[in-house]
Amino acid sequence: MAPPEGLPKMEYRFLGRSGLQVSAISLGGWLTYGGHVENENTFACMKAAYDVGINFFDCAEGYSGGESERVMGEAIKKFKWKRNDLVVSTKIYWGAANGENPVNNVGLSRKHIVEGVNASLERLGLDYVDLIYAHRPDRNTPIEETVRAFNHIINTGKAFYWGTSEWDADEIATAWRVADKLGLIGPIMEQPNYNMLTRDKVEKQFAHLYEEIGLGLTTFSPLKQGFLTGKYNDGIPSDSRLGSGSDDAFIKMMNKKVGDESWKKDIASVQKLKPIADKLGISQATLAYAWVLSNKNVSSAITGASRPEQVYESVKAFEAVGKLTPEVLKEIDDVLGNKPAVFTRRF
Amino acid sequence: MAPPEGLPKMEYRFLGRSGLQVSAISLGGWLTYGGHVENENTFACMKAAYDVGINFFDCAEGYSGGESERVMGEAIKKFKWKRNDLVVSTKIYWGAANGENPVNNVGLSRKHIVEGVNASLERLGLDYVDLIYAHRPDRNTPIEETVRAFNHIINTGKAFYWGTSEWDADEIATAWRVADKLGLIGPIMEQPNYNMLTRDKVEKQFAHLYEEIGLGLTTFSPLKQGFLTGKYNDGIPSDSRLGSGSDDAFIKMMNKKVGDESWKKDIASVQKLKPIADKLGISQATLAYAWVLSNKNVSSAITGASRPEQVYESVKAFEAVGKLTPEVLKEIDDVLGNKPAVFTRRF
Amino acid sequence: MAPPEGLPKMEYRFLGRSGLQVSAISLGGWLTYGGHVENENTFACMKAAYDVGINFFDCAEGYSGGESERVMGEAIKKFKWKRNDLVVSTKIYWGAANGENPVNNVGLSRKHIVEGVNASLERLGLDYVDLIYAHRPDRNTPIEETVRAFNHIINTGKAFYWGTSEWDADEIATAWRVADKLGLIGPIMEQPNYNMLTRDKVEKQFAHLYEEIGLGLTTFSPLKQGFLTGKYNDGIPSDSRLGSGSDDAFIKMMNKKVGDESWKKDIASVQKLKPIADKLGISQATLAYAWVLSNKNVSSAITGASRPEQVYESVKAFEAVGKLTPEVLKEIDDVLGNKPAVFTRRF
Amino acid sequence: MAPPEGLPKMEYRFLGRSGLQVSAISLGGWLTYGGHVENENTFACMKAAYDVGINFFDCAEGYSGGESERVMGEAIKKFKWKRNDLVVSTKIYWGAANGENPVNNVGLSRKHIVEGVNASLERLGLDYVDLIYAHRPDRNTPIEETVRAFNHIINTGKAFYWGTSEWDADEIATAWRVADKLGLIGPIMEQPNYNMLTRDKVEKQFAHLYEEIGLGLTTFSPLKQGFLTGKYNDGIPSDSRLGSGSDDAFIKMMNKKVGDESWKKDIASVQKLKPIADKLGISQATLAYAWVLSNKNVSSAITGASRPEQVYESVKAFEAVGKLTPEVLKEIDDVLGNKPAVFTRRF
Repeated sequence: MAPPEGLPKMEYRFLGRSGLQVSAISLGGWLTYGGHVENENTFACMKAAYDVGINFFDCAEGYSGGESERVMGEAIKKFKWKRNDLVVSTKIYWGAANGENPVNNVGLSRKHIVEGVNASLERLGLDYVDLIYAHRPDRNTPIEETVRAFNHIINTGKAFYWGTSEWDADEIATAWRVADKLGLIGPIMEQPNYNMLTRDKVEKQFAHLYEEIGLGLTTFSPLKQGFLTGKYNDGIPSDSRLGSGSDDAFIKMMNKKVGDESWKKDIASVQKLKPIADKLGISQATLAYAWVLSNKNVSSAITGASRPEQVYESVKAFEAVGKLTPEVLKEIDDVLGNKPAVFTRRF
Repeated sequence: MAPPEGLPKMEYRFLGRSGLQVSAISLGGWLTYGGHVENENTFACMKAAYDVGINFFDCAEGYSGGESERVMGEAIKKFKWKRNDLVVSTKIYWGAANGENPVNNVGLSRKHIVEGVNASLERLGLDYVDLIYAHRPDRNTPIEETVRAFNHIINTGKAFYWGTSEWDADEIATAWRVADKLGLIGPIMEQPNYNMLTRDKVEKQFAHLYEEIGLGLTTFSPLKQGFLTGKYNDGIPSDSRLGSGSDDAFIKMMNKKVGDESWKKDIASVQKLKPIADKLGISQATLAYAWVLSNKNVSSAITGASRPEQVYESVKAFEAVGKLTPEVLKEIDDVLGNKPAVFTRRF
Repeated sequence: MAPPEGLPKMEYRFLGRSGLQVSAISLGGWLTYGGHVENENTFACMKAAYDVGINFFDCAEGYSGGESERVMGEAIKKFKWKRNDLVVSTKIYWGAANGENPVNNVGLSRKHIVEGVNASLERLGLDYVDLIYAHRPDRNTPIEETVRAFNHIINTGKAFYWGTSEWDADEIATAWRVADKLGLIGPIMEQPNYNMLTRDKVEKQFAHLYEEIGLGLTTFSPLKQGFLTGKYNDGIPSDSRLGSGSDDAFIKMMNKKVGDESWKKDIASVQKLKPIADKLGISQATLAYAWVLSNKNVSSAITGASRPEQVYESVKAFEAVGKLTPEVLKEIDDVLGNKPAVFTRRF
Repeated sequence: MAPPEGLPKMEYRFLGRSGLQVSAISLGGWLTYGGHVENENTFACMKAAYDVGINFFDCAEGYSGGESERVMGEAIKKFKWKRNDLVVSTKIYWGAANGENPVNNVGLSRKHIVEGVNASLERLGLDYVDLIYAHRPDRNTPIEETVRAFNHIINTGKAFYWGTSEWDADEIATAWRVADKLGLIGPIMEQPNYNMLTRDKVEKQFAHLYEEIGLGLTTFSPLKQGFLTGKYNDGIPSDSRLGSGSDDAFIKMMNKKVGDESWKKDIASVQKLKPIADKLGISQATLAYAWVLSNKNVSSAITGASRPEQVYESVKAFEAVGKLTPEVLKEIDDVLGNKPAVFTRRF
C-alpha cells in the first residue's frame, strides 16, 4: 500500500547540536508494538512511516517487555531497509524482562547499561543503535558511572549518541559537567513529554540548555494519548480505548484522571482549541502536531500508530506549521493559559 | 530441595557509591568449593543461596588453585541462571596454579592482571565477571600500573567494577588519586575481614573513605571461621574441623591460635555474648551475622557454606538486625571491649 | 608492460609532521576510475604507478558513487601488493550511494563517518586505510563530534591518520584546538586544489599552519584538469574531453568557464608560460608538475591518469624540479601575476 | 638434556618501576637465531635457558629478517611452555623484510608500529608480546605519534609494556613528558649496550632516569661479542668466528675495529682483567657477566648462545656477583680507567 497522494514532504531536523538528522515526525513503539497492536499492523505502520520519509524509529527495552524491540527489528529485516538510512533508538532502565531477580535489571548501573544494551541489540537483530537513552534518572547510581557506561557503549560501537528521557535539567547539566571533566561525551538529546497541555519542562526548565549544551529533543505524546484530537470533547466514546473497559497499562494510566479536576480543566482547554483549528481549516490533531513542530527546539515529535492511516495523518502537520503565525500562537497561548514565564540568563 | 518456609526476605544493598546491588549476605568459595567440599555439595549450596535470593557469588583465582572458580562456573551453567541476575566476582593475585614459574603469576603487574583475568574467565566459563578484586596490595608494583590494568579489564568488557581486598586505607586513597589524575575508574569496593572480634580496619582505618570515595565493603569471615557460633566455648569438639587433626590450610590457620593468649581472650568474649543472644532469642551465629549487617557500610557479608542448611541459617540474620537497638549494640561493645575510637575529619 | 627506461627516481616525502612517507607524485581515482575509465585501464595505470614507485593511492567514497574504491581495491588484490608497501586513502562526506535516504549519508556526523568508513573498507576489500579524510567541512556538525569520530576510526584500527579536504585554515585550527583539549589526534593533512593558477589557499591562508601544526598537503589538480598542459592554448581541440560534447561531471565543471573572462585570463597566463617551458627544455605539463613539487609544503601531488603513459609523463617532473631556480620561479610569478602576499606571524 | 648439577639459582629482577619480573640473565636472538645458528641448536639453547630459569626471551622484527622471531616462536610452541611463564619481547624499527618498498617499513610511524607488530606476532605465533621496544629513535617521526602508537598496541592487548632501545636520555624524557601530558603510558625500559668496555650511557647519561621515571634496563652484549672472555688476548684464534674469514654482519661489525687503536686499548684492558678473575677463581666471562649484574639498574643482561653450554656458563655469574665487593669493583674501575664521572641532581 502506497501513501496517499498529496502528502507534504517530510522535514528533517538536526538532533540538537549533533550532525545527525531525524525526521521531524517519528514513530515510536510505546504502548503499541509488541503489545496490543498485532505484528502485521506494526509492519504496515512501519512501512507507511518509511514511505512518508520517517527515518527515526524509537523503542525501549521496557516497551512490552522487550517485544516492541523484537517486532521492530523484524520489520527492519523484513523490508531490507539499509541500516544507514535509519535512525534506531532504544532506552535502558526497565530491563526486568531479562532476568528473574529485578535488582540489577533496572536502573543505570554500568552492569545494567551494558547487559541491557546487549540484550536490546540481540532482540533488535542489530549491531548498533543510533541513539541510546537513559530511560529515567537513576538517583541511586552516581551520574559519573552512568556517563562512563554510555561512553563505553559508544566506544565499543554499540551506539553513536546517548541521551536521556525524563531527566531534570540539573541532572542533564551534571552529566555534562562530569563528561566535560573526564573528556567524555555528554547526553545530546532528551526525550520529554511535550504537547499543548504539558509545557513546563520543555519551555521553562530546559530553556537555557538548548543554547548552553545544544540539547536536542525527541518529544513524546504530541496528542496526549489522543486527548488533543478532541475525541473526548463530548464525553468518552464507547468505541475508544478509554471506553473499552480494558485494563492495559495505557487505560490504567489514563483512567486515573477521567473526571477529576485536572481532566475537566484539560477538556475545557481542548474544547476552546476547536474554533482555532476550524478557522485554520485543519483538524485538532493536525493543530496539536503542528504546534509541537513549531517549537524549533523539538528535533522530532514521536508518534504512536496502530494503523497506517494514523501515520499519514500525522504528516499533514507539515502543511499546517506555516499557518501557526505569531498571532495564532498567541491566540493558542491565551486559550491554554499555560505558557510558562521564562527568565533568561545572560550567561 | 526448596528453602524452608518462613525465612526472612533477602535484603539488597548498593555496593558503595555504585549502582550495583548485592545481596547483603553472599556466598564465597574460600576454603570450601573446589577444595574439601565435594562438587555435589557446592552445587546444592549455590542452589540454596540462589533460592533464598543471594545474587552475589564470590571467588578468587587463588581459591583451591582455580578449582573453586571451575566448580562455581559449572554450577552457573548447570542451573541455567540468567547471567544478569548474578553478581560474580573473582580476585587476582595468587595465580600460581596457572604456570610453572611463579614469578609473574603472582601480584598486580599488568601482565598478571590481564593473564590472570583471562584464565579466571576461562575457568568460570564466563565472558565477564561483575567484580574484579586485587586480592592483596602488591607493594612491588606501582599503583598506577595496577589502576591502569584494571581499567583495561573494564574497558575490554571483562568486568564492570574493580576493587581491593585487604588493602590499607592509604593504598585505596592512592589508587583513587592516581585514577582521578588520569581520568580513570578507582576501586569501588574493598573486601576486608570483619566480625565482632576483628573491627579496627573497617570501623577506624577506613572510616573517612565511606564518605570521601563512597567505598563499599564486601566483608568476609562474619563468624570468624565458626568461632563466633560459640562452638568452641566449651573446648574444641572432636567432630569439628579444628578437632579432626586434618592439616589443610584452614586448620593450620586456626591452629596457630588455639590455646594462646589471644585465643583465650576471644573465647572469653564469645562466652559473654551468649546471654545477649539468649535474651534476644537468637543463636550466637545469628547474632554475629546480624551484628555485621547492622553496619550500613557493609554492602555484603560473604559467608562460606558446605551444606545448604548453613545458607538458610545465615539468612535468619535479617530478622535479627532489627533487634540490635543502640542499647543492645552498646551492651555488645561493652562485652567485647574492642570498639575503636574514631576521630572524624571535618573535610 | 614495464616503465620506459630512464625515468627519474621516485621521491618520498613525509606527510606533514607525521612519520608516514608518501610518494611525491601519487595516483587518484577522482573523475576517472570506476567512472569513464574502463577497469582494464585502471589496472594498467595502477600497475604503472606502482612500478615507478608511487605508493600513495587516493580515493573517496564519493568518487563514481563508490565504484572508484571498488576497482582500486580490486587492483590491489589482483597485483598481490603487500599492504604495508601501500598508502591507501579514502574520504568521507558524500556517501549517498550507500542508502536511499540521503539525509544521514552525507556530512561528518559520527553516524556517517563510522558507517561511511565501514562501507568504504568493504568496497576496498581492506581492513584499514592509511589515511582517512573529511572530504569537505560540514558546518552543520560540531567539529568536536567529527574530531571524536575520526579518533574512534583510528582507535578501532580502521585508519592510521586523519585529515581534511578543502577545509578553511580556521576550521583546521579549530579541529586541533578541540583535539588538544581532549587529548585526541588532530588532522595531520589537508587535500586542497593547488596549481599555478590556484595558489591562495596553499600559499596564503594555510601559511602559518605548516609550522604551527605541521600540516601536510596532498594536493589535487596539478594540471588544472589538463589546462596547464597548454592543450587549450589555441582553442578547444575537437578530440579533447572538453570538445567531445559529452556531458559528464568533468565536462560540466569545465564548461562553466569556457570563454568567460576568467577562462580568457587563464589562457593568456598559460600561453605566456610556454616560452619558459621551452627555454628549460620541458613540456608545459612537466613545468606544471615540477612547479607544484617545488613547494616543500606539498607532501604529494595527486594526479589522475587514464593511460599508463600519463603516469610515466608525470614522473618526469622530478628531473625538472632542479631547473626551477629562484630566478625561474620569479619569472613564473611575474607571468602569472598571482603570487599571494603573505604576512607571517612571529608567534 | 638436563642442566649440569650445581648451577646457581636464577635471580629475578623487577623491570624498572614495573610489576614485571625478568630473569637477570636472559636469552636474545640477535646475530644468532634464524641466522647462522641452526634451528635445532636454537631449540636446544632455548630449552637450556628455560631449564635454568630464564624467563625472558628477546627478539626483534629486524633479527635475521624476521627468521629469529619465527624460530623462537616455533620453540615456544614445540616445548608447550605456558605463555604466562614467559616474558617475550620484540622490537620495531627495521621491518624491511615485510615489504618491497622500504619507505614505510622502517621507523616509528604509527603505520609501521602497527603493521610491524602485527607481522611480528604472526611470525611468533603469539597473540601478544610482553614487551615491545622501539628499536632505535626515529628522528623523522614526532615522539607523540610514537607514544600514541605504542599505547594503541598496549590498549589493543598486543603488548603489556613498551620501551626503547638505544635512545638518548633526553628522548626517553621527552617520551615521558608527552605521555604524562596525554595521560598515556611512557616507556618503562631501555635496551642499551652495556659491558665493562661500554659504560657511559648506562652509568652517566641515564643516571637520573632510574630515580625519576624508574627506567629499567635490559642490556645487551655483556661480553662485547666475546671480547671480554679474553679469547682475543693472545691474537685472533683461527677457529673463532672472527678468524673464520666469513663475512656475515657480526664479522663485519667486529672487523672494523681489529687492530686499530681502540682495539689495542681494549685488548690491553681485557688482559689486565685476567689477574683479577684468576684471583677470584672465576673465568673472565663470568667476571664480565657478574660485573654487569652488579649494577642494580640492570634488570636483565641479555646474552646470545649458539650452544646450551654457553647458557649454563652464563648462569654461573650469580655465584660470582657476591665476590664483587666494593674493593674489587674499585680495582676493576682502576684497570679499565673508564668509570664515568656522574654529577647527580638534587631534583
